[in-house]
Amino acid sequence: MRLSRYFLPVLKENPAEAQIVSHRYMLRAGMIKQQAAGIYSWLPLGYRVLKRIEQIVHEEQVRAGHIPLLMPTLQPADLWRESGRYDDYGQEMLRIKDRQDREMLYGPTNEEMITDIFRSHVNSYKDLPMTLYHIQWKFRDEMRPRFGVMRGREFLMKDGYNFDVDRESALHAYNRHMVSYLRTYERMGLTAIPMRADSGPIGGDDTHEFLVLASTGESEVFFDSAVTELKLGNRDVDYDNREQVAAVCKEFTTLYARTDETHDAALFDAIPEERRKVARGIEVGQIFYFGTKYSEAMGATVVTKEGNKVPVEMGSHGIGVSRLLGAIIEASHDDKGIIWPEGVTPFPVGIVNLKQGDGAADAACAGLEKALLAKGLEPLYDDRDERAGAKFATMDLIGLPWRITVGPRGLANGVVELTSRRTGESEEMSPEAAVDRIAQIYAGV
Amino acid sequence: MRLSRYFLPVLKENPAEAQIVSHRYMLRAGMIKQQAAGIYSWLPLGYRVLKRIEQIVHEEQVRAGHIPLLMPTLQPADLWRESGRYDDYGQEMLRIKDRQDREMLYGPTNEEMITDIFRSHVNSYKDLPMTLYHIQWKFRDEMRPRFGVMRGREFLMKDGYNFDVDRESALHAYNRHMVSYLRTYERMGLTAIPMRADSGPIGGDDTHEFLVLASTGESEVFFDSAVTELKLGNRDVDYDNREQVAAVCKEFTTLYARTDETHDAALFDAIPEERRKVARGIEVGQIFYFGTKYSEAMGATVVTKEGNKVPVEMGSHGIGVSRLLGAIIEASHDDKGIIWPEGVTPFPVGIVNLKQGDGAADAACAGLEKALLAKGLEPLYDDRDERAGAKFATMDLIGLPWRITVGPRGLANGVVELTSRRTGESEEMSPEAAVDRIAQIYAGV
Repeated sequence: MRLSRYFLPVLKENPAEAQIVSHRYMLRAGMIKQQAAGIYSWLPLGYRVLKRIEQIVHEEQVRAGHIPLLMPTLQPADLWRESGRYDDYGQEMLRIKDRQDREMLYGPTNEEMITDIFRSHVNSYKDLPMTLYHIQWKFRDEMRPRFGVMRGREFLMKDGYNFDVDRESALHAYNRHMVSYLRTYERMGLTAIPMRADSGPIGGDDTHEFLVLASTGESEVFFDSAVTELKLGNRDVDYDNREQVAAVCKEFTTLYARTDETHDAALFDAIPEERRKVARGIEVGQIFYFGTKYSEAMGATVVTKEGNKVPVEMGSHGIGVSRLLGAIIEASHDDKGIIWPEGVTPFPVGIVNLKQGDGAADAACAGLEKALLAKGLEPLYDDRDERAGAKFATMDLIGLPWRITVGPRGLANGVVELTSRRTGESEEMSPEAAVDRIAQIYAGV
Repeated sequence: MRLSRYFLPVLKENPAEAQIVSHRYMLRAGMIKQQAAGIYSWLPLGYRVLKRIEQIVHEEQVRAGHIPLLMPTLQPADLWRESGRYDDYGQEMLRIKDRQDREMLYGPTNEEMITDIFRSHVNSYKDLPMTLYHIQWKFRDEMRPRFGVMRGREFLMKDGYNFDVDRESALHAYNRHMVSYLRTYERMGLTAIPMRADSGPIGGDDTHEFLVLASTGESEVFFDSAVTELKLGNRDVDYDNREQVAAVCKEFTTLYARTDETHDAALFDAIPEERRKVARGIEVGQIFYFGTKYSEAMGATVVTKEGNKVPVEMGSHGIGVSRLLGAIIEASHDDKGIIWPEGVTPFPVGIVNLKQGDGAADAACAGLEKALLAKGLEPLYDDRDERAGAKFATMDLIGLPWRITVGPRGLANGVVELTSRRTGESEEMSPEAAVDRIAQIYAGV
């Protein structure tokens, strides 16, 4: 993409309405525009990151054997009357009447609708286990939407629902989700710690939240610092292997890590003092096991191998897709702007032409662009007639992890400069070597 | 994907509520489930086709130089008061009040919001031309939603908006959209004829609708039969070349083709009688040039090269993404079920194991599955313990264009059977040859 043909409306000034760094940088980098309180347009750069995050979530869900579908944004109120949540949900539910005066709502979550889909089509243990998920826009009419996409009203969420014949299978589904989420967040460059949490309006017995440490987090968290060292990495997990999956979960949930809702001072004090940490965290996902809460209320049953009709065992599992952009920026930025992890960057690399209009520089940039595209890596090429300083400032603000700088002086020596956004370190090399290095960096992403 | 682990709830009976074949087959093939009048869940098979269509639309928009972003589903009413459409739009607009009693609406289209984004960030001819588009859920509160996804209330649409400095550039954008749409529909296996149409509530001077011929179409259409022979094919169109793009448009719009709204009996009668056709058509897209209708009302101006401040020239361009599933089925089916064109099929090929549990057959099917996956072609493998007849009926109903049938008898001779869903013709060949043939078929898709 050439910047001269792109729509990247960066702001020089700090927007007054933004209280936290992610909101400020998303506005300044031309990623979002507020259209109403807590409702945003995703401008081209923001949209690219959103799609990238969505893609990683999809890939890891499919890898875990979960099946994508798509439920609508609007739901009939009657479905929520069956579970009893229509009256319970309160003012955060956006209630709507259509032209026929039928009561509808903009879905804040989908337990009722997925249970309805299940009961309409499935009635035998033979069709289980089954996990269905979707990534769809939701609405929660927050009293005080703020912090940009971190606490918006219209937000994109992945929500998945498992259906199992017994408690043991449902707990395996719970564990499978935990492992798939760990991998999902790691691919985004995040350390998201599963913490025992409170189930809130979803209900249920077991629940973990995934929290990213950041000083602007809404939750106070208490943990053993050793938990931040755990990595799933590239280990090959067989999602059908209950023991293996359970062992990974045990590894990640044995050390103390809790939110203020479930904090236990006595347990916390048992941690060696130097590893006892109190910090703030941003919630980026939550998994629930709630058994038969919805299936009993809504009549979703299956016939077991033994011929008994039982309510299906369920859980639900959410990732805040749009909120993740904010969380990643909170966790990865400096005073010049965003620093995207390679996994979610809108463009893998930026090209800065120091002397637009110079024949050699223009040709070298075009050559780099072509070579990168041939490797499936689309660069953002700043081909504007601007000063080098302005180009660098834009690249730093929008946070592409790598930059190739091309100028007549370097080209005379056959070199361009490759710079890491994270470390600020630069290295001179031939254009070919720069392309190879970028390809190598992204080969594992 | 193995069918035993998938969620494909096919129905044996014809659902009573479905009046047209696409609605009937989408329900029977387990592609959709109605959640409220005109509001559908996209079950896994339907979701795959929806994503495939969305992907083609994206690719062809990006190829034409258009920039993706994403606007929210809900919009503030005040924006629509600026253009005067809030009161004009009527009962099809779903009006909503939030908890603070602010007036909102579920966007039926986005001219106002995109104009707001533009005026907030762009004010010079230097940033033009610019075309922004998104693919997002819309809502129109139809009095009588029917025909499944063909006339739903919540529907997925691609809508794009061009911003140009003068009328001539805006007309080029109009032409560019026409060509990109022709290519989009052809890739989906559709003949969609651009027809001069009426502009309706969007307003404007120039507009064409794209119509797919089908007996269940909502519009009566009049055309010269020669127009159905035109093909864009793989010709290399330079979307920046105004003359070339205009020449393609001329080629596709010179022969008589109009909807009943703009039909001219005198012109129609001038066509040689044997080429004069009256039929029905399904609208799958529309392009509009409306000049400064919104930019004047909403103050979206740019400074020209000469230093004059002028309202920006605009047009809008829509493709009915969710409706296309219905249109494609209406145009491509037989009495056994759907026949997906290769471009949009949910799976490129099905594998039918005639004797599940037979060692050789199971191994051959697993081998085919693996070989196809290695070529990036994910098959749907019917590994259920079912009769051959039931497996064939399911494959025919869900409409995968190719089927590989594997049985012990063929394997004894080293062959499997490759069958075309469209022609019903079968050919015996080695498993390796079948994989190569499938790969060859999809190489150009």
